[in-house]
Amino acid sequence: MSDSGLSLWMTGTGPDQDVVLASRVRLARNIQGYSFPNSLPAEQGEKLTAAVEDAIGHIEPSWNLSLSRLTDVSALDRQVLVEKHLASPLLVADPIRFEGVVTDDRESISIMVLEEDHLRMQVLLPGLQLDEAWGVVNRLDDSLENRLTWAFDKKLGYLTTYPTNLGTAMRASVMMHLPALVLTRQAGPVFGALAQMGVVVRGLYGEGSEGEGHIFQISNQVSLGRSEEELVHGLSMVAQQVAGRERQARELLGRNSESAIRDRVGRAFGILAYARILTSEEAIRLLSDVKLGQDLTYLPPFSSATFSEMVSMTRPGILQQMAGQDLDAAQRDMLRAEVIQRHLTRT
Amino acid sequence: MSDSGLSLWMTGTGPDQDVVLASRVRLARNIQGYSFPNSLPAEQGEKLTAAVEDAIGHIEPSWNLSLSRLTDVSALDRQVLVEKHLASPLLVADPIRFEGVVTDDRESISIMVLEEDHLRMQVLLPGLQLDEAWGVVNRLDDSLENRLTWAFDKKLGYLTTYPTNLGTAMRASVMMHLPALVLTRQAGPVFGALAQMGVVVRGLYGEGSEGEGHIFQISNQVSLGRSEEELVHGLSMVAQQVAGRERQARELLGRNSESAIRDRVGRAFGILAYARILTSEEAIRLLSDVKLGQDLTYLPPFSSATFSEMVSMTRPGILQQMAGQDLDAAQRDMLRAEVIQRHLTRT
Repeated sequence: MSDSGLSLWMTGTGPDQDVVLASRVRLARNIQGYSFPNSLPAEQGEKLTAAVEDAIGHIEPSWNLSLSRLTDVSALDRQVLVEKHLASPLLVADPIRFEGVVTDDRESISIMVLEEDHLRMQVLLPGLQLDEAWGVVNRLDDSLENRLTWAFDKKLGYLTTYPTNLGTAMRASVMMHLPALVLTRQAGPVFGALAQMGVVVRGLYGEGSEGEGHIFQISNQVSLGRSEEELVHGLSMVAQQVAGRERQARELLGRNSESAIRDRVGRAFGILAYARILTSEEAIRLLSDVKLGQDLTYLPPFSSATFSEMVSMTRPGILQQMAGQDLDAAQRDMLRAEVIQRHLTRT
Repeated sequence: MSDSGLSLWMTGTGPDQDVVLASRVRLARNIQGYSFPNSLPAEQGEKLTAAVEDAIGHIEPSWNLSLSRLTDVSALDRQVLVEKHLASPLLVADPIRFEGVVTDDRESISIMVLEEDHLRMQVLLPGLQLDEAWGVVNRLDDSLENRLTWAFDKKLGYLTTYPTNLGTAMRASVMMHLPALVLTRQAGPVFGALAQMGVVVRGLYGEGSEGEGHIFQISNQVSLGRSEEELVHGLSMVAQQVAGRERQARELLGRNSESAIRDRVGRAFGILAYARILTSEEAIRLLSDVKLGQDLTYLPPFSSATFSEMVSMTRPGILQQMAGQDLDAAQRDMLRAEVIQRHLTRT
């Protein structure tokens, strides 16, 4: 866990951050000689996790990695791992002893142990930094390979539990803030065109999370038949194109609907600044509007915290972790309003 | 017209103003020897208005009264007269030459000439000042009687076009801000009890204007068989009782729903402070919430202007008069937000 309680991808800065909030590259790896997780006997699970622990222990100390077994992590902290995108809901639900998560001190790296695959290692960086994230995760992969032998097939590439991940077993994704594409009704057509190119668009927290706060995850689909570099580079190009479309849409909004947008973003700021009760849904929606206002220079920078940081602070788990105690929904809604107000720049 | 563009009852202060915004006493008078307005021939109308003009001219100059013929008043200024409660919609619609309105320089007095009755004179003061308003309108009545002879019957009292006004031909009313009675769902029962006592409750702009901004007009119904002093005193007692109920309801809200009310009034302030487009309906609703917040000391005084002044400034006609030009609805909504923001005290 990081010291600040938040991860580098939330608090840090990076290129194209007006549209691209964060970049992530994830590799799926399975260890030779073990069954896939869905059919792995308990004693093998224990042995595998011990082997991973050993490999982590032998990695260069500057990586600052440490493994937590999920049974040692409280329910609240497990929820926080999901909200920080360091673990999946699947991994943290009903934890068993040999499941775990490896993170570094900046929470830029995470390795899920015994989720769908034996290992899923990811690097998550602020802004558009797919190449950088790939570079880091690739070095991590090499370092672990010193002590672990990956299940690999010359023809199929890295072997994975689900065939969709075969080949590079890599998934690259970017988290994008696309309010203007949504407001100008271009999101549908743009996402449709992306789907044609094998690029998948999902909400902030995966399938079913409908672009809360106009935040979308855009990721590559195909992992077979192309190199990692090609895939990462391809998605980076896509992200830049989508970012360009979003910026055009913002200009269009500013030109055609200035009063309405100034009103919308002003109201959002006013409510965030003076409400006493905020649900996470309303908070993320208003934060999205306020960020749009800032990007259009209709509002001054609304906080010294980044948008990702503000959004993260509104999540139920992270909020309770900040409070240092469990809170019911009504208490969370009040604390959320307070925390946001503490971080807003009044004008 | 007043110099500030607003009337004394809006900008001034008075007793119990946390609940009672303004007090009004109105007398209906008809002049002997003329038919009632609904059957008055044009040449008689001309003569009558000339007689009123003459009487006004002979009244003590310190009253500062002057008569405007409605055909000399622009459509916008006629709308403003209605919004200031100085004339009725009935009087200003389709003006004819001999209809007019007399006002003083503070717009505390108005006399409608040839509305339902020959003359309807009223005095409107800020806060709960029914006795004071009655005193002034009574002296005005006496002064006019020096040159005009009222139609009067020993048994029926002052004769009026409609029999409901017979007797004293007086109507006293108070404009009250009752948000807590509405929010605690006590307004219905309280108004029901008032109806039993012959007291009428209407919205800010008469029948059908449903308590916009939680503002209600409460007036006496019976004008026959009791003296003016009794009627005025009776309504003053009623107003004090209703004000007491409203204050209790505010305390109750503060005790039982503090978070929800703080949230509600905070949001109202935030939107008023940062919106760029405000309809008059939304503005009056939000101003009402903000005043409630101020009365509960949840918000500091939100403006150096009074609540009545803020509400008045949001009215379409007054707003256009302030702008010095005709504005369409979209322009008004933008100017309204601007004017309100100029008058808000930021915290």
